[in-house]
Amino acid sequence: MTHDRRLVILAEGNFGYHHGKTAMGVIRFGQDKVLAVIDSTQAGRNVREWLGDTGRYDIPIVASLSDALGFLPRANGLLIGIAPTGGKLPDEWRTVILAAIRSGLDIHSGLHTLLSDDPEFADAARSAGVRLIDYRRAPDRMETSVGRLHEPGKRVILTVGTDCAIGKMSVALELRRAAVESGRSAAFVPTGQTGMMIEGWGVAVDRVVSDFVQGTCEWLSEEGERRGDWVLVEGQGSLDHPAYSSVTLGLIHGFTPQSMVLVHMPGLDEHDWDHVPGRRFPLQPLPDFIRVHEEVAGLVAPSKVVAVALNTSRITDEDAARRVIASVAAETGLPTDDPVRFGGGALWASIAAATDALPWVVANDARHEVSAA
Amino acid sequence: MTHDRRLVILAEGNFGYHHGKTAMGVIRFGQDKVLAVIDSTQAGRNVREWLGDTGRYDIPIVASLSDALGFLPRANGLLIGIAPTGGKLPDEWRTVILAAIRSGLDIHSGLHTLLSDDPEFADAARSAGVRLIDYRRAPDRMETSVGRLHEPGKRVILTVGTDCAIGKMSVALELRRAAVESGRSAAFVPTGQTGMMIEGWGVAVDRVVSDFVQGTCEWLSEEGERRGDWVLVEGQGSLDHPAYSSVTLGLIHGFTPQSMVLVHMPGLDEHDWDHVPGRRFPLQPLPDFIRVHEEVAGLVAPSKVVAVALNTSRITDEDAARRVIASVAAETGLPTDDPVRFGGGALWASIAAATDALPWVVANDARHEVSAA
Repeated sequence: MTHDRRLVILAEGNFGYHHGKTAMGVIRFGQDKVLAVIDSTQAGRNVREWLGDTGRYDIPIVASLSDALGFLPRANGLLIGIAPTGGKLPDEWRTVILAAIRSGLDIHSGLHTLLSDDPEFADAARSAGVRLIDYRRAPDRMETSVGRLHEPGKRVILTVGTDCAIGKMSVALELRRAAVESGRSAAFVPTGQTGMMIEGWGVAVDRVVSDFVQGTCEWLSEEGERRGDWVLVEGQGSLDHPAYSSVTLGLIHGFTPQSMVLVHMPGLDEHDWDHVPGRRFPLQPLPDFIRVHEEVAGLVAPSKVVAVALNTSRITDEDAARRVIASVAAETGLPTDDPVRFGGGALWASIAAATDALPWVVANDARHEVSAA
Repeated sequence: MTHDRRLVILAEGNFGYHHGKTAMGVIRFGQDKVLAVIDSTQAGRNVREWLGDTGRYDIPIVASLSDALGFLPRANGLLIGIAPTGGKLPDEWRTVILAAIRSGLDIHSGLHTLLSDDPEFADAARSAGVRLIDYRRAPDRMETSVGRLHEPGKRVILTVGTDCAIGKMSVALELRRAAVESGRSAAFVPTGQTGMMIEGWGVAVDRVVSDFVQGTCEWLSEEGERRGDWVLVEGQGSLDHPAYSSVTLGLIHGFTPQSMVLVHMPGLDEHDWDHVPGRRFPLQPLPDFIRVHEEVAGLVAPSKVVAVALNTSRITDEDAARRVIASVAAETGLPTDDPVRFGGGALWASIAAATDALPWVVANDARHEVSAA
């Protein structure tokens, strides 16, 4: 995104919760000025209460669009900060979006329902002279994977997870930040709408025609490798998710990451997916799930889970969080931390060293040296 | 498809080969009269040479559309019988398709390039009063999986494979035939364009937006269960394919088959996927690959590979083919046969018995009986 965006974020009924992850991600990691969040159920509160008492996060939560505009006439965009299941536009948002368009705001949307394909929105936007930006519109490119190899010297690292919406994007962003701070050339590859809103490029892979998912990932990897030597890829879904596992596997086989980082939320023991009475989807024990990832990745290209990133946001007490981290490190035998809460530096150092030592990375580099000689 | 179709099939340069599998499938399993096949590289030959000297397969191969129409004025449709990698329309076919439209033929296409979205084809079809039928057009329905359970008493069986284009659809069709012949209520679920052309319904799952692949499979399973007690599902791709594995996993986790049949072509030891110099994709040993399927399926719902179906079409000698079948049966410990070559009856009997004995099927039926009492 360009850097003169001044956004109001719609997160009605969901700020701080699962389905409001886009709002939180854009506030936490984005480059844009966020003027207000709309959530009538939490009006009067402030984003500081979630993200800490710094000036950066001094963002009021208001009850309605008119409240936001009344207080904050400088806004030039409304960002839809909710990711409902299935990505469809709830009917009750039409009025708000139309009002925002008529107030002269661009609309930033990551919904599956493409706003610019909707005649009513498109007409209103034309009249008001504003833009409808659908981050989930798939690129025209429709290519299957060709089995591309990574460029010499490039390391591709994918975040995978035990569920949706537990922080795979945030972990990749924190690791990218740590990599850059440690002097590495590093890039973040957005594979979902929130990552794209933050980073200004990428593809919402779950919107791509399924035959082209792996070809699209291959293309995104190429682009990432152009932007940095260490490529941190935002993962999607989870390999055992009843609805989204195929997208997850598309990323694993399309990016062919040399290493993976498993993101998990301690205490979560089943998928938040409860649509059919009596049908539940328990999570796998972490060591088993790590082994399955390596086995399944290895069907196309070798890959190793080199670290575990925990999302300890539900554990208020810091010492308790650190005890859980130590316990998962012992259970998995892998470097473990919460890079969003405690900073990514230590985990990043372990990940970089472990990735560089992987035999297939060493072999690749040796081959590249030989062929360059 | 309705039963008054009289087709000419375009298979230029590919009849009898990998990319001509749609032509062969429609001839072998379809309900429509096929008048001629167009393939200038094999003009003068007859489909009998591949499929046996029966009246049903007495179909001339001709050099061009005008040859086909000259000999066979009764045609009312041109079916595109080639499935090129990536599914795109080769430029050189435009002329043939336009000529066919202008000759009054409906066009049946399974390409990713949707003919009815092409203004030149659409205009020509309107003028000529013919239809453009794009089997790969995705349904409007865009729903994620909800974790649906199979209806009581229904058994869902998915064909999986060691590669693309080795006979997963043919095996499912032969097993459905054997099931019906043995007195079972059985249905075939088409998940690709050729299966749809044969059966007259289904969805080309590889064309669906990736987020909705598993939801679409769930919907197709529901439809299959409505059509029969034993549901034979056409598989797609393979779980270790660099380009298509995500679609394969979408079927496994979307259909949640109680059992699977692994389709393999003896002698094939790597994927026919050779786009990048030096990068090859060897197949897994069958016992390992069977175990991986069961493990990955089990992340969402338990499933077992209960049989191996071999495609022995490259082994001319019948005794040699039977020796290979015996050897694979010994290697895998599973009932093994070539149901397309030797008939599906024996393999079907084993598959039905093994599926009915699976503990989760038994448990399900018990629960259903209890709840019905």
